[in-house]
Amino acid sequence: MTKVIIVYATDYGSTKKMAEVIAEGVRLVEGANCVLKPAEETSAEDLISSDAVIFGSPVHMGSLDWRMKKFFDSVCSGLWMKDTLNGKVGAVFVTAGGFGGTGSGAELTMLSMLANIAELGMIMVPLPKNTPGYTNGGLHWGPCARTATGAMEQTGFSGEMTEVARNHGIHVARIALELAGKKLFTG
Amino acid sequence: MTKVIIVYATDYGSTKKMAEVIAEGVRLVEGANCVLKPAEETSAEDLISSDAVIFGSPVHMGSLDWRMKKFFDSVCSGLWMKDTLNGKVGAVFVTAGGFGGTGSGAELTMLSMLANIAELGMIMVPLPKNTPGYTNGGLHWGPCARTATGAMEQTGFSGEMTEVARNHGIHVARIALELAGKKLFTG
Amino acid sequence: MTKVIIVYATDYGSTKKMAEVIAEGVRLVEGANCVLKPAEETSAEDLISSDAVIFGSPVHMGSLDWRMKKFFDSVCSGLWMKDTLNGKVGAVFVTAGGFGGTGSGAELTMLSMLANIAELGMIMVPLPKNTPGYTNGGLHWGPCARTATGAMEQTGFSGEMTEVARNHGIHVARIALELAGKKLFTG
Amino acid sequence: MTKVIIVYATDYGSTKKMAEVIAEGVRLVEGANCVLKPAEETSAEDLISSDAVIFGSPVHMGSLDWRMKKFFDSVCSGLWMKDTLNGKVGAVFVTAGGFGGTGSGAELTMLSMLANIAELGMIMVPLPKNTPGYTNGGLHWGPCARTATGAMEQTGFSGEMTEVARNHGIHVARIALELAGKKLFTG
Repeated sequence: MTKVIIVYATDYGSTKKMAEVIAEGVRLVEGANCVLKPAEETSAEDLISSDAVIFGSPVHMGSLDWRMKKFFDSVCSGLWMKDTLNGKVGAVFVTAGGFGGTGSGAELTMLSMLANIAELGMIMVPLPKNTPGYTNGGLHWGPCARTATGAMEQTGFSGEMTEVARNHGIHVARIALELAGKKLFTG
Repeated sequence: MTKVIIVYATDYGSTKKMAEVIAEGVRLVEGANCVLKPAEETSAEDLISSDAVIFGSPVHMGSLDWRMKKFFDSVCSGLWMKDTLNGKVGAVFVTAGGFGGTGSGAELTMLSMLANIAELGMIMVPLPKNTPGYTNGGLHWGPCARTATGAMEQTGFSGEMTEVARNHGIHVARIALELAGKKLFTG
Repeated sequence: MTKVIIVYATDYGSTKKMAEVIAEGVRLVEGANCVLKPAEETSAEDLISSDAVIFGSPVHMGSLDWRMKKFFDSVCSGLWMKDTLNGKVGAVFVTAGGFGGTGSGAELTMLSMLANIAELGMIMVPLPKNTPGYTNGGLHWGPCARTATGAMEQTGFSGEMTEVARNHGIHVARIALELAGKKLFTG
Repeated sequence: MTKVIIVYATDYGSTKKMAEVIAEGVRLVEGANCVLKPAEETSAEDLISSDAVIFGSPVHMGSLDWRMKKFFDSVCSGLWMKDTLNGKVGAVFVTAGGFGGTGSGAELTMLSMLANIAELGMIMVPLPKNTPGYTNGGLHWGPCARTATGAMEQTGFSGEMTEVARNHGIHVARIALELAGKKLFTG
């Protein structure tokens, strides 16, 4: 089995819910299974034993949640030192309140998580524009679920946000199935 | 008079229209005037003779319009070499189609223009969250007008997008009035 | 007196040392004083009572230290909600090990801290290229002290890194002196 | 044969030289060949007929060369509209003068090119830290050759910069060989 782990931080449950939908997508792919863990409970061994890792974070003050960053600094940095995760597959998603109408920093949040993925030597999966649900939940770096309008009225997820997240899970699982266990980097 | 110049690239007129609204804001400030120029027609002298510069671009392929970049590479780089613009005031704005619902790269577009501003040694004006109109046209780096829904239906500007742009112009003009002509950097 | 606060996180003391040099620069400006605090010990009141804030972080896994991010998420976010810091002055600096020879993520680290500054509605001070010491310690977003070679041999700070940091402090103090207490934003 | 194309812009020949070294790496992989083209001479068909694309740019004013951006806006955007390149493999590299000692904007330059790659739905190859030559030519997003010291003395490429570039070519070719022609995205 190809194993995908989703590591996330959540405040009111939106990012966790997105993680669950992505996990549904992973499990739709034959030969792939999926584990979900909050960043605080994720160990180095959890990452080592996975073929793909998906990081999810709410947007706070224009970048990623501090619990995700603590996980990167304290757990991932040791794996970076030892080049342990090279060649695995990585991807990201975020949730944002929507204030302002332009993502409130969703992009820099995604790039900060992608930086961790790239440092770990993992191959990065984008979100193609014609993925079902993209029109109201997509950015090229990954799915972004907005849980409120620009004026901060709570709206919950739209069906499109769920759909694009599920497809992102399918993509990551398929690519992990192709690449798992192969030695592709020279280092 | 404190002089503000707005340099922009436009495809179908949206970025130009945003530029005009920002210029209205600048002109509301006593002691400030404003000039608008497409990037292709802007000279080094235009920047040198201004106290503040506002750059505006549509979002294309996740970053700034190539005509803006050509202007940075060919006109601004010479001023960077000579440290000519140090201490002036800079700000940015963008227009985006809205596809995906999360800015389509508005943030990296703004950061690419801010990089040019920072390279030129110019002091950067953000967009505070309580600026009138921010709820549907604001990002912390500057105003972002979305001219279509996530599904790419053309919507034109909302009143909020116009309002936030006008206020951005007021902010830049006021800050330029405070700082114009002062020698604040040691270089 | 115009008050500047430097908020930092440090691992082995390099970022703290940079903070001290920047503080020296601030204190060279007549009418300005400076306080230094680790992020964990900094309160909302510390920021409210300052005219300018300088954030400093080591680079970890391609972005900012998690303790800085925890401070942004838990202390700064409350001030963002209330628009308390609008119009103050902000700036950043980083330290990096140098592995790879290209900053190891210094730029995204700076941008993550600038995102927090922009969210708080603070005016951003860049680092002009002709600042003394820039040639070996400068990036346009702020000073970056590399404490090791690309091969990770510890080198300590060069004189240039100290010089550029001191000048950054001078710049921020001077700009804060010009803008302190003025109501420049419309919100 | 798996086909890799390298699209670049060059000023004084450094980026072209890096492109040639990466092409050497590609050709070391059995079953892969490589074509090099300046951005101005590259057509949509060149990309469509390739399995992997590597973009290379000098750093100018803190982001990518305008000729690269013109190519993205005028050639790539049409392919984005039609979702033509989904599932191909993409990677980046840059050259920078080194002024300041911290990459002069190498990171944002790479991210702007990666944004184009992600918009096109292409899977992104990072540069693992233990790649030979990384210590003096590596950033996690891709190789970065600095052609001058922080003080802008011309130095040419070091052997490490050549080595890391060659290995990047090997990586991209190997990953393209694994993924070429497979339908991995749902859109």
